Amino acid sequence: MRDFVCHGDILFAREADALEVYESGYLVVQEGRVEGIYPVIPEKFENFPRKDYGRGLIIPAFTDLHIHASQYVQRGIGMDKLLFDWLNDYTFPQEARFQDMSYAKPIYDAVVRDLLLHGTFHASLFTTIHYDASDYLFRALEEKGLYAYVGKVNMDMNSPDYLCESTEESLRQTERFLAEHPGTGTVKPVLTPRFAPTCSEPLMRGLGKLAGKYHCGLQTHLVESRAEKSWTLELFKDYGSDAEIYERNGLLENGPSIFAHFIFPSQADLDIVKRADSTMVHCPDATTNIIAGIMPVERLHGEELPIALGTDVGGGQGMGVYRQISRAVQLSKLKEFYEPEESKTITFPHAFYMATKAGGRVFDHVGSLEKGYRFNALVLDNLEDAGCILTPVERAERFCYTGDERNIVARFIDGKEIHL
Amino acid sequence: MRDFVCHGDILFAREADALEVYESGYLVVQEGRVEGIYPVIPEKFENFPRKDYGRGLIIPAFTDLHIHASQYVQRGIGMDKLLFDWLNDYTFPQEARFQDMSYAKPIYDAVVRDLLLHGTFHASLFTTIHYDASDYLFRALEEKGLYAYVGKVNMDMNSPDYLCESTEESLRQTERFLAEHPGTGTVKPVLTPRFAPTCSEPLMRGLGKLAGKYHCGLQTHLVESRAEKSWTLELFKDYGSDAEIYERNGLLENGPSIFAHFIFPSQADLDIVKRADSTMVHCPDATTNIIAGIMPVERLHGEELPIALGTDVGGGQGMGVYRQISRAVQLSKLKEFYEPEESKTITFPHAFYMATKAGGRVFDHVGSLEKGYRFNALVLDNLEDAGCILTPVERAERFCYTGDERNIVARFIDGKEIHL
Repeated sequence: MRDFVCHGDILFAREADALEVYESGYLVVQEGRVEGIYPVIPEKFENFPRKDYGRGLIIPAFTDLHIHASQYVQRGIGMDKLLFDWLNDYTFPQEARFQDMSYAKPIYDAVVRDLLLHGTFHASLFTTIHYDASDYLFRALEEKGLYAYVGKVNMDMNSPDYLCESTEESLRQTERFLAEHPGTGTVKPVLTPRFAPTCSEPLMRGLGKLAGKYHCGLQTHLVESRAEKSWTLELFKDYGSDAEIYERNGLLENGPSIFAHFIFPSQADLDIVKRADSTMVHCPDATTNIIAGIMPVERLHGEELPIALGTDVGGGQGMGVYRQISRAVQLSKLKEFYEPEESKTITFPHAFYMATKAGGRVFDHVGSLEKGYRFNALVLDNLEDAGCILTPVERAERFCYTGDERNIVARFIDGKEIHL
Repeated sequence: MRDFVCHGDILFAREADALEVYESGYLVVQEGRVEGIYPVIPEKFENFPRKDYGRGLIIPAFTDLHIHASQYVQRGIGMDKLLFDWLNDYTFPQEARFQDMSYAKPIYDAVVRDLLLHGTFHASLFTTIHYDASDYLFRALEEKGLYAYVGKVNMDMNSPDYLCESTEESLRQTERFLAEHPGTGTVKPVLTPRFAPTCSEPLMRGLGKLAGKYHCGLQTHLVESRAEKSWTLELFKDYGSDAEIYERNGLLENGPSIFAHFIFPSQADLDIVKRADSTMVHCPDATTNIIAGIMPVERLHGEELPIALGTDVGGGQGMGVYRQISRAVQLSKLKEFYEPEESKTITFPHAFYMATKAGGRVFDHVGSLEKGYRFNALVLDNLEDAGCILTPVERAERFCYTGDERNIVARFIDGKEIHL
């Protein structure tokens, strides 16, 4: 059933500055896309089947543009460690196990299930360096109709022996991944150099050639912490900024470029990502956990840089990107406290926009309920306490601050209801 | 059944610096208290009934020393507002409705239910200025056997007309509350001047007299923000520090004193609360939401000041104080990032200690599983993903970061199992 009418309280963010709300509205879905929202059902849709959610809240499904699928099993573990201990003690040994498909499969199955459960129907995911497991995740996401980018990770230096490829092998397996996954469905392959310090210049150059040959985009970490930034510029001495590494090697020309964190950009970084129409990903819990700092969201938004949200599981602890909406507001408040000259607090509507339409831009017509958008949507229950009526905006806010997947009572992808 | 043996993985914090763990241990409960923990059941307890939780994790129930019970229905609403807008638009009008018992009862019933659900069996709660509703909450907590302090709030100045008492009425209703609730059971009354700017000096003096007459303690907010601190010292010109207001008026001598926030203490504040053996309450989410700043936990702990955790619902959004354990670690990392000279990060064991034994000190033998402590305890499920074995410490950490009440599979108060 891809033609029908949904009734409920409808809420989405067309822009960052306000939420659009239609209380007791009728949303017409035609061929799996939003046809329109009406106060009463127009005559020509009167014979469409109807779903009445009463005071349920109909919102766009969420977009999470930074997930390490392979770190799913690390959620909430070793979180009081410092970054390099966390990587060496937990992350790298754990990622190495994805060589073994009997280890990888149940974990990637759980990732796909949790994306559906938490209403994240659009995502960009890192796997590991391993081809077979990456292939498995790609197909598992596609089978469920999720919209996603999946990248086999590249690492050819500054990595533990057991998790380091040769440059040639890294490029060969990446090309194989691109060739075998042309991305004609809802899931597309994306180049995924882990971050500059683990990728040699020849590897970057090779990836740039593959980007052109296979017309694909890029996801990676960029100026995530002061330490990472200065390390990168030591390793790439001929480059004037971190972003330049990707630009000069031809990685920004053939698809969306998705940069996680982007906390300490130089002006050159900013100029490059704007030219490339890149999308930045703010991951509030993760940048707190690794003591990276806080992204200057308000300032970058003022410069018209697109900013999405990400969970960064397992650097971030939870799979529901809706929680990062509340955390983005919270971190903007802390940033205002500590750096008042740098920042203003962001509003709940702004953060909601980041996790829906702003991140959705790297896909096609997802993340909003405007006319023509795919009906990738969630219905929330009313989230109210006895005797206390909440407005639609209050219900959306409460969901992001304290709700969880139990509050999601219906899920749609391309107008098709998903039953878990 | 108050004599029995529990088997499982047992974990608690005797001190802040480490967790004590007994894998596959047998915890003997005798007359509702912990008799001991053994690798095999000692002969003399062999005929005790047994509960086998397998790899379930047996931990102390949690302690939340700062809850505004009346703000329960505000959880996760208006969180992007600034403090005074939040108070004037949401909190004060909402608190005024507690005059109406048909409004108050279902809310306080929900508070009690949620405390049980989330494993918070020891709590200190603010109500509102209203006697009847405060009385209702007191009795509802007692009926469930919860350990709690409950305070009718005092406000006789700088408050909206509809939520302001005369000094005389405030003292009269407070005395009535103390007289009618002698606190011979698990719930005790506590003096609750909202915070210094809403309480006149004559009111403070009167409360001090009641403290002596009824032998009761104090809960309030102290040096919560720079703005509050300077406003207080403007209003109380004869006082050299905020804490002195409570000390000189005789409010610190007759029971535990519980001070929420304590972010900007002067040396005089510090000296006073140490003399009074007060307990400080760190409320990470709330102090973020109201842009107050971050408590210098590590420094205060180094000065041997007892620090508990609190949710500060509704300034904080969620009822599970276990989540504040993870948030305390996270905020300590942000504090280290912004104020490295002031702070060190705290560990997960340290934060766990705060939400169990450290807060439990204002009650009698709760918050630990040492011999002689009340068996106020929770059993958690194993919190593991397919194929990934976690240590007991990792399971506890994951629960605090990403778990929720669904992971609590058994609850005990005074050795009696609670069925919800």
